[in-house]
Amino acid sequence: MDVISFARGVPAPECLPVDELAECARAVLERDGKTILSYGTGAGYSPLRELIADWFRVHPAQVIVTNGGLQGFVLLAERLGRGQTVFVESPTYDRPLKILLSKGSTVVPVEMDDQGLSAQAVEEQLRMHQNPAFLYTIPTFQNPSGRTAPVERRQAILNVADSHGLQIVEDDPYGLVRFEGASVPAYFDLSDKRTIYTSSFSKTIAPGLRVGWTILPPELAHDLIESANSTYISPVLLGQATIYEFISRGYFEPNLVKVKKLLGERRDAMLAALEKHFGGTGAHWSKPEGGYFTWLELPPGVIAKGVLERAQGVTAVLGTDFGGLPGSMRLAYSYVSPDEIDEGVARLAAAVA
Amino acid sequence: MDVISFARGVPAPECLPVDELAECARAVLERDGKTILSYGTGAGYSPLRELIADWFRVHPAQVIVTNGGLQGFVLLAERLGRGQTVFVESPTYDRPLKILLSKGSTVVPVEMDDQGLSAQAVEEQLRMHQNPAFLYTIPTFQNPSGRTAPVERRQAILNVADSHGLQIVEDDPYGLVRFEGASVPAYFDLSDKRTIYTSSFSKTIAPGLRVGWTILPPELAHDLIESANSTYISPVLLGQATIYEFISRGYFEPNLVKVKKLLGERRDAMLAALEKHFGGTGAHWSKPEGGYFTWLELPPGVIAKGVLERAQGVTAVLGTDFGGLPGSMRLAYSYVSPDEIDEGVARLAAAVA
Repeated sequence: MDVISFARGVPAPECLPVDELAECARAVLERDGKTILSYGTGAGYSPLRELIADWFRVHPAQVIVTNGGLQGFVLLAERLGRGQTVFVESPTYDRPLKILLSKGSTVVPVEMDDQGLSAQAVEEQLRMHQNPAFLYTIPTFQNPSGRTAPVERRQAILNVADSHGLQIVEDDPYGLVRFEGASVPAYFDLSDKRTIYTSSFSKTIAPGLRVGWTILPPELAHDLIESANSTYISPVLLGQATIYEFISRGYFEPNLVKVKKLLGERRDAMLAALEKHFGGTGAHWSKPEGGYFTWLELPPGVIAKGVLERAQGVTAVLGTDFGGLPGSMRLAYSYVSPDEIDEGVARLAAAVA
Repeated sequence: MDVISFARGVPAPECLPVDELAECARAVLERDGKTILSYGTGAGYSPLRELIADWFRVHPAQVIVTNGGLQGFVLLAERLGRGQTVFVESPTYDRPLKILLSKGSTVVPVEMDDQGLSAQAVEEQLRMHQNPAFLYTIPTFQNPSGRTAPVERRQAILNVADSHGLQIVEDDPYGLVRFEGASVPAYFDLSDKRTIYTSSFSKTIAPGLRVGWTILPPELAHDLIESANSTYISPVLLGQATIYEFISRGYFEPNLVKVKKLLGERRDAMLAALEKHFGGTGAHWSKPEGGYFTWLELPPGVIAKGVLERAQGVTAVLGTDFGGLPGSMRLAYSYVSPDEIDEGVARLAAAVA
């Protein structure tokens, strides 16, 4: 029996534009090889940095392009979070959590519901924990829960943040991977670009190129770039230049359409399979309009760890790995085919019974 | 007047094998794109990891391939050096120094002479500072001094280290860039592979690809890979795969011959210019058989800061930036042409007078 993986939050291989990127890598090296192959600065490959600044209508000095979005978060956590209190969503992406803990931060989980964070939940924690360094949030198609906070919630949270001087760090790698429904404005836009925004090309082009970016106030951007200069000197310019070329040639939009179609079919298969195998059992799951993940809350009293131990030929990640409850698990539908998804969910359901 | 830079420790553009790398990047993406463009592990691109393990006759589990050699040092400093005492050479490469300070390490400089570190100098510091976490050394064509420790010194230091349980971390990015003379065995080889060894392809292929590696005991390698997994997930696989392809096609050796010729001419020009403009002034400089740098100690009583402020159209890095004496400066001959080198040294000499 082949193992069906709902654990891997990675794109299906057919989502990766291999031929176009091969062409772009060669072309950009031939055109700008002397720059790409020598040392650069911690700010990243200048043409890509300027392109991103242009997309977001900020000054290039506010942008740092890093080896994946997480590298930016490492620099940010070091600069703002070391030894400080940091608010995160509960559950949240496990890697930022580990990074914060490695910096000696005190991590305060803020409860979410089906609509993500609420201003009330943030306020409640603010009463108990004063002057947190920042709130880390993935407001759209969150990893791990797949949840999206509606605009009213974001606005209310922004008001609370403003009145308490709380910095918001918004991680938005999935926002463009929307299959249906209207997009929700980012905190970055709602706040007139005062919040910190980070994203990457991992979900829209290819994760292996490890290209992410962070947009932040100029003086903070300067500090992060200095820190990058002092540690890893410059990010890998070849991946960044290849992505710049890919976008410049007009490949980004058509590729995104293709990726959304491939992933949307998988999301459909996941929601149909959950309804078919878990409908009426008392289980509950998120119904994301985009992204990679759904969050399964098993019927009351059922423990995810037991289910995953008993389940044959299927893997997923325990909710507790993300700070979630013992009855929860993260199901990634990004990697497996629609047929495998139905079979995998059937195997999970069999392990509950 | 064009500025002549002895500050930039970067290769001259003509050292970079642009066409071959463009060809390799495309070929490897076409052949192994699905792997290269998806998430990998913190250990790096497997074929390159295995190739390096084969070069050094170690198990691949002992090798971690990182985004440049410094990324490996960041992981190592976090794992071994946080809050600990660490011995470094005086002067030493500034970035490891900054990395160690950011980890809260107590950095103890160990004095060098023209032949690098001595066992006596290490022993002296061991009497004052007990149980340092490790000794960081660049024994061959050191950055910034250009000095190389002879084998007898290395053997004696290894004996001292063994008797005190002192771990040696050997950084060797320049070792293969030798223009003349016999190569000196690495601590790694002298110790029967018990010491930690790190190097990179920055000086032998191209720095912008940011590909370095660290070889260490399996359990420590495992810890560093876990730490990479938890933070940046995987290094940029495209650069690593491109280098793998470059080596597999047999381009490495002929390219190294070309690089050594180009850099050797520059070293010759630097030593000739120093003799011409500083001979008989009481100045002293290292005479490296390879690498990128020479270390200039100005005539007694002359301060490098003043010279660089007065000098017109020439830059270098102050020795004090590397923990060196006020009369010293690092001259990189890697970037500028032989003609520029003579002119640049003449400008420096004029600023001394």
